[in-house]
Amino acid sequence: MRVLLVGAGGVGSAAAGIAARRDFHEVFVVADHDLARAQAAVAGREGFVAARVDASSADAVAALCREHAITHVLNAVDPRFVMPIFDGARRAGAHYIDMAMSLSHPHPDEPFSRTGVKLGDEQFAAADDWRDAGLLALVGMGVEPGLSDVFARYAADHLFSRIDEIGIRDGGNLVVAGYDFAPSFSVWTTIEECLNPPVIWEAGRGWFTTEPLSEPEVFDFPGGIGEVECVHVEHEEVLLIPRWVDARRVTFKYGLGKEFIDVLKTLHKLGLDRTAPVRVGGVEVSPRDVVAACLPDPAGLGDRMTGSTCAGTLVSGTGRDGEPREVYLYHVVDNEWSMREYGSQAVVWQTAVNPIVALELLATGVWQGAGVLGPEAFDAVPFLDLLTAYGSPWQMREQ
Amino acid sequence: MRVLLVGAGGVGSAAAGIAARRDFHEVFVVADHDLARAQAAVAGREGFVAARVDASSADAVAALCREHAITHVLNAVDPRFVMPIFDGARRAGAHYIDMAMSLSHPHPDEPFSRTGVKLGDEQFAAADDWRDAGLLALVGMGVEPGLSDVFARYAADHLFSRIDEIGIRDGGNLVVAGYDFAPSFSVWTTIEECLNPPVIWEAGRGWFTTEPLSEPEVFDFPGGIGEVECVHVEHEEVLLIPRWVDARRVTFKYGLGKEFIDVLKTLHKLGLDRTAPVRVGGVEVSPRDVVAACLPDPAGLGDRMTGSTCAGTLVSGTGRDGEPREVYLYHVVDNEWSMREYGSQAVVWQTAVNPIVALELLATGVWQGAGVLGPEAFDAVPFLDLLTAYGSPWQMREQ
Repeated sequence: MRVLLVGAGGVGSAAAGIAARRDFHEVFVVADHDLARAQAAVAGREGFVAARVDASSADAVAALCREHAITHVLNAVDPRFVMPIFDGARRAGAHYIDMAMSLSHPHPDEPFSRTGVKLGDEQFAAADDWRDAGLLALVGMGVEPGLSDVFARYAADHLFSRIDEIGIRDGGNLVVAGYDFAPSFSVWTTIEECLNPPVIWEAGRGWFTTEPLSEPEVFDFPGGIGEVECVHVEHEEVLLIPRWVDARRVTFKYGLGKEFIDVLKTLHKLGLDRTAPVRVGGVEVSPRDVVAACLPDPAGLGDRMTGSTCAGTLVSGTGRDGEPREVYLYHVVDNEWSMREYGSQAVVWQTAVNPIVALELLATGVWQGAGVLGPEAFDAVPFLDLLTAYGSPWQMREQ
Repeated sequence: MRVLLVGAGGVGSAAAGIAARRDFHEVFVVADHDLARAQAAVAGREGFVAARVDASSADAVAALCREHAITHVLNAVDPRFVMPIFDGARRAGAHYIDMAMSLSHPHPDEPFSRTGVKLGDEQFAAADDWRDAGLLALVGMGVEPGLSDVFARYAADHLFSRIDEIGIRDGGNLVVAGYDFAPSFSVWTTIEECLNPPVIWEAGRGWFTTEPLSEPEVFDFPGGIGEVECVHVEHEEVLLIPRWVDARRVTFKYGLGKEFIDVLKTLHKLGLDRTAPVRVGGVEVSPRDVVAACLPDPAGLGDRMTGSTCAGTLVSGTGRDGEPREVYLYHVVDNEWSMREYGSQAVVWQTAVNPIVALELLATGVWQGAGVLGPEAFDAVPFLDLLTAYGSPWQMREQ
């Protein structure tokens, strides 16, 4: 397997560090618009090569693939660049993995009740081309989406005879010392996913949307995290799971906590979440980029951070024994552990490990496929076993 | 009297409109960095002249004064430009009026208990020069500071034998239709005054500071406004009143309301209140300027606004009869009235009318002085009478 990793930010650098301990790849090219970042991510690692790339250009991505005879492209940049990387990989005849799907656009008239362009729609529109070319685009293969989708497939195959609801629940108790406010994940992406109309899927009704940050619920997270306020958020699992897993309802609730929810509401109220440029003095800037520039880079905060992050899938329905059942399948990463073991902060590491596990399953032929497929299109057991073998086991709690 | 008004923004344009109905001035020059704004403010008004000026240059201000033989400069731009306009007026031998004083700088080590450079310190440092030149700088002569200081002087002269506390209370119930959030006054200035350490004065202790937005208190405002949450805010009255009025304690509390207080706390937490530029992509911008650019211009919101604004001074102590007394002296402007009468929204009009009243008292010789003086250095009665003659009476409530 010859891998091109696009993006040497927090998640990309962590993914390179995880891959460096495995031997399923012949060559591992790390490319970034900032060559120095790419060089830092490959430094001292045999078989790793740094390159510069413009991720907004499908041609540039394809050219780099051809230069290094790449077989698999791993996209680790922010979701604005999904389409050029996705297209570039296919043009070069490479398989593709990402951790977030092509962006949504709200319904023009009824944004809070009907879907417009959904997450991943642009990618699924090309599914025939991928399948006909015998190429795989494995989309949404981070932790959430990603591992959360694998949990859904596992529950359907091994725990339930009928599923009423699959509800992803993500939360943590990470605290960054020395900052009044320091998100542990890209604030650009967090604003994007949290302020878009959240999408819900129901059997017989299909996909529909609701109000951002709606239906607050307190969920008790395991791993010493405890209760966190969760709200509906737009997320890929709701678009992916119903395509392969039989459930009557699929939702995603993010444990933002009250403080972060209030911050997002305020940013939206003031128009500071907008991406369209505003004129300030003699220059034009995107307000959301200014918000990101004012906050510390979450990838660099690991050594000031304490606590854990939990990603998981809450499944309710009828068990294999015919009795009502509710389980929470989850994966906790403690920041102290991820910093000590990999030098990566917990959220970034938890996102990065999953696509590397998936690449290894593809390299060994355990997972095979063509077309645009989500993680739940594949057998969950070998994934969960290999994740455990990577030193990061998953767990299950009967509710 | 030959007036140079610097600044044709909301307050400046409203001040020109108010002055246009009075005949105490021979010439009234309106200058702005944007000549078109100045031209709009003078259009069709006899004796009014538009000019372009760089308010950050004392030389440019002085040159414009000389060109038009200006006797009085009225500063109606934001407080960043106080010092060049103040210096420029004196160099040209003109008297000076402003509505906000030179900016403060927090104490380097103990910002929330000790004062650093206080509001107006730079101006008071030049007091001897002004007095020796026989020139008057009447500082803080808007509504707050300004009319609020006049109320304090009135209470001391006519209502009390001993004053325990003078506490300014400012609040309103203005609502802007069609916006999630639309401040009715310059958000740049509001952030500046609300997030600086608030200053308090006590007899025997002098000036000291406390935490921003501290000691929330619900005050019942008159004029149909009702209860609003007020917090300590840095404001000029606390620096001015103790210099001329005998009181044991002077404070300022701003009726920001819970929503605005939360917005300010969030902006501060995210570093979006900062004025120092941050690098965003290829450009540098001040985050606070970006916040202002994302919000609508408050001067242009009058026709979407409903409600009233109240400025006033709460005085407690011993009355002339030896009994305990507490009164609230106040001035309410209803937005519907100010829009109908002057085409200016309420907060802007209420700020703008007071320096025009003061200019008329100086033109007629009723008020006279030299040096750097606050509004409370002058007899309050003629001011309050002339304000009433302008069609905007004040009121008093026994508490």
